[in-house]
Amino acid sequence: MITIDEALRLIQQHTMVKTAIDVAAIESLGMTLAEDVASDVDSPPYDKALVDGYAVDAADLKSGSARLKIVEEVTAGRMPTQPIGPGLATRIMTGAPLPKGCDAAVMVETTHVEPDPDGGLGRVIIRGKPMVPGNNVMPRAQAMRRGQKVLSVGSRIRPVEIGVLAEVGRGHVKAIAQPRVAVLSTGDEVVPAETTPKAAQIRNSNGPLLASLVAARGATPIELGIAPDEPEPLRTAIRRGLEADLLILSGGVSAGVLDLVPKVLDELGVREVFHKVKLKPGKPVWFGTFSGNGSDKLVFGLPGNPVGALVAGMLLVRPALLRMAGQPFAPTPTFHAALTKAFQHKGQRPTYHPAVVRREENGARVEPLPWHGSADLFTLSRANAFIHFPAGQLTFKEGERVELIEL
Amino acid sequence: MITIDEALRLIQQHTMVKTAIDVAAIESLGMTLAEDVASDVDSPPYDKALVDGYAVDAADLKSGSARLKIVEEVTAGRMPTQPIGPGLATRIMTGAPLPKGCDAAVMVETTHVEPDPDGGLGRVIIRGKPMVPGNNVMPRAQAMRRGQKVLSVGSRIRPVEIGVLAEVGRGHVKAIAQPRVAVLSTGDEVVPAETTPKAAQIRNSNGPLLASLVAARGATPIELGIAPDEPEPLRTAIRRGLEADLLILSGGVSAGVLDLVPKVLDELGVREVFHKVKLKPGKPVWFGTFSGNGSDKLVFGLPGNPVGALVAGMLLVRPALLRMAGQPFAPTPTFHAALTKAFQHKGQRPTYHPAVVRREENGARVEPLPWHGSADLFTLSRANAFIHFPAGQLTFKEGERVELIEL
Repeated sequence: MITIDEALRLIQQHTMVKTAIDVAAIESLGMTLAEDVASDVDSPPYDKALVDGYAVDAADLKSGSARLKIVEEVTAGRMPTQPIGPGLATRIMTGAPLPKGCDAAVMVETTHVEPDPDGGLGRVIIRGKPMVPGNNVMPRAQAMRRGQKVLSVGSRIRPVEIGVLAEVGRGHVKAIAQPRVAVLSTGDEVVPAETTPKAAQIRNSNGPLLASLVAARGATPIELGIAPDEPEPLRTAIRRGLEADLLILSGGVSAGVLDLVPKVLDELGVREVFHKVKLKPGKPVWFGTFSGNGSDKLVFGLPGNPVGALVAGMLLVRPALLRMAGQPFAPTPTFHAALTKAFQHKGQRPTYHPAVVRREENGARVEPLPWHGSADLFTLSRANAFIHFPAGQLTFKEGERVELIEL
Repeated sequence: MITIDEALRLIQQHTMVKTAIDVAAIESLGMTLAEDVASDVDSPPYDKALVDGYAVDAADLKSGSARLKIVEEVTAGRMPTQPIGPGLATRIMTGAPLPKGCDAAVMVETTHVEPDPDGGLGRVIIRGKPMVPGNNVMPRAQAMRRGQKVLSVGSRIRPVEIGVLAEVGRGHVKAIAQPRVAVLSTGDEVVPAETTPKAAQIRNSNGPLLASLVAARGATPIELGIAPDEPEPLRTAIRRGLEADLLILSGGVSAGVLDLVPKVLDELGVREVFHKVKLKPGKPVWFGTFSGNGSDKLVFGLPGNPVGALVAGMLLVRPALLRMAGQPFAPTPTFHAALTKAFQHKGQRPTYHPAVVRREENGARVEPLPWHGSADLFTLSRANAFIHFPAGQLTFKEGERVELIEL
């Protein structure tokens, strides 16, 4: 039996980043950029007004007050046609291009307009603060120059990056998509959730649990339902699962009489990398690789007990999903909190114990929940974290800090 | 101009939780439960084995060693048919129901089998630790009793809850779905991302930015594209937007000459609640409500500048989205970090300034980024947080702690 760290090292060794694809920028949320992106425009594309009001020559407003002739009204999407000189102003909107000869803008709130006796657009009376060149103006290309690299290969595409891609005219982009993950539950005793289990049967909670865990991480789940403990249908289902980037099996990997799964995987050319990890719950986890359709696929066999499947999924599958999607391979992040009460823990393997964390004034505090082990999923619905207890016989005092992973 | 807190209070006052729907449990990830859920089964449904091995009478294994006659092999999905008595054992798998007369299970790893001279399944030789009743056994209903409430109305449905729903046979569930959010960009100067802007035009980065922000929060975006500054097409587009639960407009709400949006909203029966908030960037934000199709809809007019739209969206729209989806209305969570360098800030309004936070050994540290204001989206692609600076002229020392929101 290997340690969690050894398991992670082996998984990392076998996890390949997916091939980049060309994708519509608006579809790329959560993907990883597979190219550097440069701007095809200056931003702003012109010296632009940062306020609604009047484009002016700052020299006219050294005192903050002036009476200027309005030569033009520039509306959104139009270029100014009249240059500004001493004594002149142009009505502009926020974001509008500034006319020639203008080097500042005054806010409309500090102005009023008087009609001009000789017709025209009138005179603007300004009573504001003294101005200098550049006031309320954003010079052309200040935020971003044409040709400048604005996004780097390897970046995770967040809403901000989607906005930047639009700003630089990238309707499509090269990116690494999130992996497609097949989820297959196995076992003659497992029946679909919507049926009433007979004696000795249990409902398939792992399929929906694992598929939604995959979806919550941004990857694409493909639920394959339940395969019985018979070689032929199991083989057919696993073969379908191997069309995805990663296959998660649940059940069928402990040492039971009918645990066919490792045998069928071997027959199909899936190479075992490890079986069993020093971890509680989650010990019987199985990991292997498969080369098919020109890419390397991963296969995880998770325990049939739902909490074991969840813990192994969080600790071992998650880093592989991140890496396949082009992000760095990294163990599940941990944090620390102080125990709300004294607690004794005893176990031969590192244990992940359901708990409730509350952020309080003086830092996070964590309460271990009474828990009946790996088949007790119900307790998890009251938990928001797992405490990580190392192996051994341990006694913790109230207030002692423990390591956690978020649920 | 009202404060952020006043704006949030007004938004909260006008935000209604969406009507609950009946939804397939596997589609309910991220929704809010609208009913209490009880179990229709005991879990486990029988006294069950926690290990692969042999069901035994603990009295036979007081010393840890025994030689027992194997009376039956129980495979997955089958019930045992033979009771256990002294000197007898049944081969069982993890999760299997225990035969009558059995009160403990031994692990297969501590056993080997000898053939029986008189035929049958043979004898199992056990060399393990002394056992007491209950060892490696989970009693019926220990995790969950039939009729017991397992999930409560108001819970957010996470993968664990999806698993529990499956376990208790709920194919469908009453839940509050995430809101549908229409996103409409406005302005004659705005052109689609895939076109090359002419002089005085800018690309529509806000539409994709806001739609993906909505999607990243789990809600459903409906991108309506760009409406020009003309009453008729603007009215048509807004009317479409009002079919969603929430409409986000961007642009058209500052004080410019052609800012038609508030006028058209008024004509369509959208009631203004507030316009302008003491916030930088994001000041021109507009908020109103609309009663249509039997439900109360919200309308946010966000600034045309992308960072202003982003900040107002994060601070003001997000809590409304949460509440509509059945979660408590709560301001965007904040956290604190120490400045990596001395910093001066001056502003008449509370300001959200892009920054990079790094988690280090001694706690989080934050570096304010050089930034060109609300039109500078590019700088945001290097940021992972906003520092919240209160209004005023402020001088911070290196190491001083500032408040942040996550980007």
